[in-house]
Amino acid sequence: MNYTRHNLDDTIVALATPNGMGAIAIIRLSGKTAISIVNQTFKGKDLTQQPSHTIHFGFILNESGEVLDEVLVSLFFAPKSYTKENVAEVSCHGSPYITAQLLQLFIRKGARLAQPGEFTMRAFLHGQMDLSQAEAVADLIASDTQRAHAIALQQMRGGFSKDIATLRQQLIDFASLIELELDFSEEDVEFADRTALKNLVTSAQQLVNSLIQSFQLGNAIKNGINTVIAGRPNAGKSTLLNALLNEERAIVSPIAGTTRDTVEEVLQINGIAFRLIDTAGIRAAQDQIEAIGVAKTMQKIEQSAMVLYVFDIIQTSPADVASDIQQLFHNHTPFLLVANKMDLNPYTKMNHYTSSLAAVGLTISPQNFIPVAAAHQMNIEWLKSCIYQTAIQQDISSDTILTNTRHVEALQKAAESLTAITQGLNTGISSDFIAMDIRQALHHLGTVTGEVSTDDLLGNIFSRFCIGK
Amino acid sequence: MNYTRHNLDDTIVALATPNGMGAIAIIRLSGKTAISIVNQTFKGKDLTQQPSHTIHFGFILNESGEVLDEVLVSLFFAPKSYTKENVAEVSCHGSPYITAQLLQLFIRKGARLAQPGEFTMRAFLHGQMDLSQAEAVADLIASDTQRAHAIALQQMRGGFSKDIATLRQQLIDFASLIELELDFSEEDVEFADRTALKNLVTSAQQLVNSLIQSFQLGNAIKNGINTVIAGRPNAGKSTLLNALLNEERAIVSPIAGTTRDTVEEVLQINGIAFRLIDTAGIRAAQDQIEAIGVAKTMQKIEQSAMVLYVFDIIQTSPADVASDIQQLFHNHTPFLLVANKMDLNPYTKMNHYTSSLAAVGLTISPQNFIPVAAAHQMNIEWLKSCIYQTAIQQDISSDTILTNTRHVEALQKAAESLTAITQGLNTGISSDFIAMDIRQALHHLGTVTGEVSTDDLLGNIFSRFCIGK
Repeated sequence: MNYTRHNLDDTIVALATPNGMGAIAIIRLSGKTAISIVNQTFKGKDLTQQPSHTIHFGFILNESGEVLDEVLVSLFFAPKSYTKENVAEVSCHGSPYITAQLLQLFIRKGARLAQPGEFTMRAFLHGQMDLSQAEAVADLIASDTQRAHAIALQQMRGGFSKDIATLRQQLIDFASLIELELDFSEEDVEFADRTALKNLVTSAQQLVNSLIQSFQLGNAIKNGINTVIAGRPNAGKSTLLNALLNEERAIVSPIAGTTRDTVEEVLQINGIAFRLIDTAGIRAAQDQIEAIGVAKTMQKIEQSAMVLYVFDIIQTSPADVASDIQQLFHNHTPFLLVANKMDLNPYTKMNHYTSSLAAVGLTISPQNFIPVAAAHQMNIEWLKSCIYQTAIQQDISSDTILTNTRHVEALQKAAESLTAITQGLNTGISSDFIAMDIRQALHHLGTVTGEVSTDDLLGNIFSRFCIGK
Repeated sequence: MNYTRHNLDDTIVALATPNGMGAIAIIRLSGKTAISIVNQTFKGKDLTQQPSHTIHFGFILNESGEVLDEVLVSLFFAPKSYTKENVAEVSCHGSPYITAQLLQLFIRKGARLAQPGEFTMRAFLHGQMDLSQAEAVADLIASDTQRAHAIALQQMRGGFSKDIATLRQQLIDFASLIELELDFSEEDVEFADRTALKNLVTSAQQLVNSLIQSFQLGNAIKNGINTVIAGRPNAGKSTLLNALLNEERAIVSPIAGTTRDTVEEVLQINGIAFRLIDTAGIRAAQDQIEAIGVAKTMQKIEQSAMVLYVFDIIQTSPADVASDIQQLFHNHTPFLLVANKMDLNPYTKMNHYTSSLAAVGLTISPQNFIPVAAAHQMNIEWLKSCIYQTAIQQDISSDTILTNTRHVEALQKAAESLTAITQGLNTGISSDFIAMDIRQALHHLGTVTGEVSTDDLLGNIFSRFCIGK
């Protein structure tokens, strides 16, 4: 480990429960003097003489002997605690006044207010968990869908850490053997079996690549997918939004140009959050406000991961649709064609559009051309399943799904080093270069799990935690 | 006890910590099956076989065997718990998603979502605390000043309950003796010593009256004191508000009539919250908006507990001040005369105002006529001490201070019954009437501590609690 350890000698304290009034609030202390600090202020049993994992009723008194609250104190003696340090949790009445008083008292008695994530950082520094597990704690608290929750929990409980740790150990063994060869370089011996190394690197590449590939899904699960609903005025964009959400949110009116502000709503499909972004209609703007609205729409499309292009089969001819497609989609953002108001002309068929769209290079199919009647909830479930399929091109059944940008970046660098090792082995490059590439791969894999970390990295990671965790 | 007991046979569950994201959230269950319900979902030790007041690490699994969270479960076996029932507290990650999942799981397993205050109501119904102590729990959580907190804590720990309980017991003894006399009414014997009864009633009246008197202070401590700042335009009301709060809040400008909306700020003096209410200047309004402002000021004065009348010693003559006083103060709202801008004319003395104000019936003194220079913080501390003295005419050093309107009303009725007993004893009224008055007094005293209560009363009291308490 090449970071300077943070100060682990002092005792930290923080409110561990959310701010505000409630039945109970918890103040948590961790460090050598955590229990003795609470004990100094506690009227009841001698807390320092009690067993770990026990709860004690009593009173917290200030320096003047005034009772601040009736409390329950939970004791966890090192190393059997979250941080592996002595931990005391003071459960008091959930009053902001009382929690402020208790915090101030414990600080006067020698504790220091904890930084965000400092309890979890101590858990990491004391080897309770690796870095990717620690990061999962924050993800777990922030998770708001079933799948985000499942992935964070999986990662917190070890997830891919074990695979990476095994891989690192094998690479370390090879690196040692190769470095041993270097010591005997004049004798031209081979301690490290080149074929076994090639096989190891190949399986390492498979693991790393499958993790990298899982990130598309993982990121979608963690952060949701921005999905723009675009189309001409009165195509039924707001109605479609409502049909998808199955509620009345956007202001729906028959007057073209009603939706000027973009409206954001979240639609959940199979545990993935699609952030649906309604937009102003695309057309030559009638006034300045509308011009701004159209520009906003174009900007939103550029920033989105997916677009639902909605058109009115009565008002918009196949040629018009083709022209819109050509105008709107310069980049590779996936999009679906949603043919609205099918109830008004059930004789319109997908194949009426085939040639016009083929002319602008688009092959349509039942998966990207979806007839609906938004106002009547017709075919909305099929649309949802197409939205999901389009966004999540491969669904990964494994629990091991990357959700963290930092991890994916480290693994991409590790993959580059692994490729360099393979190339080196194939071209019979000198052992010292191979050893260097292995060290590089080890370094990048190590940053994922925290075997390699810096103060800056730790500061950056834990500052995103809430205080008290 | 004459209430129908609420259903105490089922197990209740609620989130006990404030809503929102945090490091830790706590879900609390209370009832016969509290521990066995958690145990059914818990992967770890058999919780039902563990000692009370211990903490256990493990996992909560749903019916499909999926881990919902890593948790710590704290166990409290009846009667050694807050409610005197079996209690389990599940400490999980502070994620709204997780707490919702756990609550739903425990409800599927047979728990019922608790009503607001239901844990504390069970504590009361099982004799853990009396009703006034239970009410103090909610006050304690809501307390936001040192004194409100001290009084709530005092009341929660017994406070005046013990005095009232002793008094009730003595009255019950007398009532029994008097009712015994009624059984022997034809023999004209006296079991109850009339002199001792008179003495008891006298000391009861002293206790009850001192409690009733403490309510003025108690109410001020609990709810704060509405204090209006009134005066002519440009007298310096906003500047005075800022000087008292020692910060820039109200918009101060040299243009008369700037302050049109009333601004509320809280000033703490000796632990009492004074809600300072700035007002529009009092004068013949120039336009409709100002007319509404002036009407609002008059209304605010009528609703306030105290007024600071501010005037500019340069612009406002003693006669004008007297005229304002006569116009503004029709009722008995206490007020202070704040003579502002003394720095501009240090030769003005209080005695210049004596005769004009005497003419409108006002005797001025250094306690109600306070020269200040608000813009320069001159004499603001003295003004604060006068504000406090005026609001809190008697400061009660005792810890026993009533803060609850329900208690003061019950004690007022008890006081009436005690007066009726005294009168009955003095006029030698028949014993059965005296017995009836004693029963009345007992009834009213009993409602304070909850020996007498109804479902409606309990519902009304506990519905003001937060959920989970």
